[in-house]
Amino acid sequence: MNNAQIASSAVIHPDATIGPDVSIGEFSIVHNRVQLGAGARVESHCVLGRPTDLAREDGALILGDGAYIRSHSVFYQGSQFGAGLVTGHRVTVREGMTVGIDCQLGTLCDLQGDCQFGDHVRLHSSVHVGKHSTLGDFVWLYPYVVLTNDPHPPSEDDNRGPTIGDFAVVATMSTILPRVTVGVHSLVGAHSLVRHDVAPHTVVGGVPARELGDLSRIKLDSGEPAYPWPRHFRRGYPPEATNAWSERF
Amino acid sequence: MNNAQIASSAVIHPDATIGPDVSIGEFSIVHNRVQLGAGARVESHCVLGRPTDLAREDGALILGDGAYIRSHSVFYQGSQFGAGLVTGHRVTVREGMTVGIDCQLGTLCDLQGDCQFGDHVRLHSSVHVGKHSTLGDFVWLYPYVVLTNDPHPPSEDDNRGPTIGDFAVVATMSTILPRVTVGVHSLVGAHSLVRHDVAPHTVVGGVPARELGDLSRIKLDSGEPAYPWPRHFRRGYPPEATNAWSERF
Amino acid sequence: MNNAQIASSAVIHPDATIGPDVSIGEFSIVHNRVQLGAGARVESHCVLGRPTDLAREDGALILGDGAYIRSHSVFYQGSQFGAGLVTGHRVTVREGMTVGIDCQLGTLCDLQGDCQFGDHVRLHSSVHVGKHSTLGDFVWLYPYVVLTNDPHPPSEDDNRGPTIGDFAVVATMSTILPRVTVGVHSLVGAHSLVRHDVAPHTVVGGVPARELGDLSRIKLDSGEPAYPWPRHFRRGYPPEATNAWSERF
Repeated sequence: MNNAQIASSAVIHPDATIGPDVSIGEFSIVHNRVQLGAGARVESHCVLGRPTDLAREDGALILGDGAYIRSHSVFYQGSQFGAGLVTGHRVTVREGMTVGIDCQLGTLCDLQGDCQFGDHVRLHSSVHVGKHSTLGDFVWLYPYVVLTNDPHPPSEDDNRGPTIGDFAVVATMSTILPRVTVGVHSLVGAHSLVRHDVAPHTVVGGVPARELGDLSRIKLDSGEPAYPWPRHFRRGYPPEATNAWSERF
Repeated sequence: MNNAQIASSAVIHPDATIGPDVSIGEFSIVHNRVQLGAGARVESHCVLGRPTDLAREDGALILGDGAYIRSHSVFYQGSQFGAGLVTGHRVTVREGMTVGIDCQLGTLCDLQGDCQFGDHVRLHSSVHVGKHSTLGDFVWLYPYVVLTNDPHPPSEDDNRGPTIGDFAVVATMSTILPRVTVGVHSLVGAHSLVRHDVAPHTVVGGVPARELGDLSRIKLDSGEPAYPWPRHFRRGYPPEATNAWSERF
Repeated sequence: MNNAQIASSAVIHPDATIGPDVSIGEFSIVHNRVQLGAGARVESHCVLGRPTDLAREDGALILGDGAYIRSHSVFYQGSQFGAGLVTGHRVTVREGMTVGIDCQLGTLCDLQGDCQFGDHVRLHSSVHVGKHSTLGDFVWLYPYVVLTNDPHPPSEDDNRGPTIGDFAVVATMSTILPRVTVGVHSLVGAHSLVRHDVAPHTVVGGVPARELGDLSRIKLDSGEPAYPWPRHFRRGYPPEATNAWSERF
């Protein structure tokens, strides 16, 4: 099959579309309506393209070229990821995700579905993203960050998650309440509860989160300002992504 | 075997009891002393009825009719779940759980065992329930809620978890300390640390949690009171459950 | 193979070193450069010795005698664990861990690698340990504790995690910021954010954490002081470990 390496125990349904140079590990299952781009690597014990339970019209699961899915991960059908997706182990991705290129989802991330992510997004381990959340480009979410979506749990109110602006950073163990917007280039400190919108280029923290002074006063060890972080940090991004940064901040 | 659909790679121990119309997915293991009710669906990569390590007298794992266990989940022997159990992916359930009907356990939930749950309980993703916790009927626990059970960790003190009353709601990322009672119809706000009992029909929040005024002042988008939530929210419950609600609040 | 019990579906690479009386469960994968000590038990659906992605010189994965790895766990190559390791389900362990004897890692623990742990360490469920963290002997970390390592996320600053002293306890849902030292025999209360060093024999708590008075005032149900905890708690430790305690506090 076009140079693919499929482990002998893997279960590949006949209508899956497997690009060239794909590898699929032991004990993994690839359902119908999956499209794996060129060079995709799927490790062991994964489930890709799991059919939905609901009476909804979910389409294919599309993973772009070079996708790298670590072991024990589960992706439902009905989502689309741009080229260069990298995941940790045991990620769970429900239906209706539209995600750009070069995104990373850490170990144990739990994406509830029906979200829009930009390009070059970085989710560290154990990030929980409620339905109908929106992430811009170059967003960073750290371990145990939660984006919630029900303003009065449980309710039938418009369940809309937060909107996280380009280049924004949410540090570990912070909760963002529904409908909140975190502005571009802002920083949410660790262990915070964010109830209200965060203006661009702002640092907030605490339970509940309050503005914590001037973001530019936070310094690297070198004494240079730590934010906006793209001034000093480029590790892991493709060069064509960072070449255009100077026009964005 | 009475119309069961067992994947060819699944490992079913000979003394497991498989009801009619059961399905069991690829790479799953069903140990002895498991009783799967009629119509149960077990997805791939699961382990059901794992024998205990300890020298304790744990009995069967009993999953009632219609149980729906998503992939990569692990249930130990010695627990009993009423009909209609639904789980997310990768749940872990230790010994000694007694759980009512129509319960839902979200992805990555971690139940430490020896707990009593009522009927119609809803645990969202990544809820951690310490041993000897008690949940009433219609309880809601949201992502990363922790019910702890050791008042002086580590100690040999009576390790008793919290008691959560009927219809109570604990929002995301909140910790309930041991022996605490959360009263019926109460709300614990997101990202709270609850050290003391919460009276019925009360809202608390913060680190540490304090009473936050009158619960009835929290309004839905429509302007109606958001709590008690059963006045406006019935999605996902069987009709016979909600028909009797008017007598309970 | 020297009395080993290998499930028929397990995939054992030919250069793995399997000690006597080892058992390996169904659907598990053991890569080359793995050394499993005598009597090791590996449950189902595990991946041991996963090769690293990076161009680094990681060596073998060495699990000492009596290791007990519960199901769905993933260990990369390039780490060394002393005898008596016990894990929960679904732990993830990256490269470069050096861990002493008699350590326990709870269900869903996520160790990012390049850490030093002492002997007799206890991690409860869902502990996240960032790279370059250091744990002493007899440390306790409770569920959803996070040890972070980037002081200005994201940055190229020296990414060094916390140092947790011997016998220290970090209660559930607490975050320790990078480079912080938690002193020997100290207690971090539940749901805390620790930004500064914690002196030995001290209790701190809150967001941000502050000193909470005299640790010796915290009493067990019996009225005896709860800390230092080794005065009253020895469950689960080998006798040779606790025999020497009286010389250490």
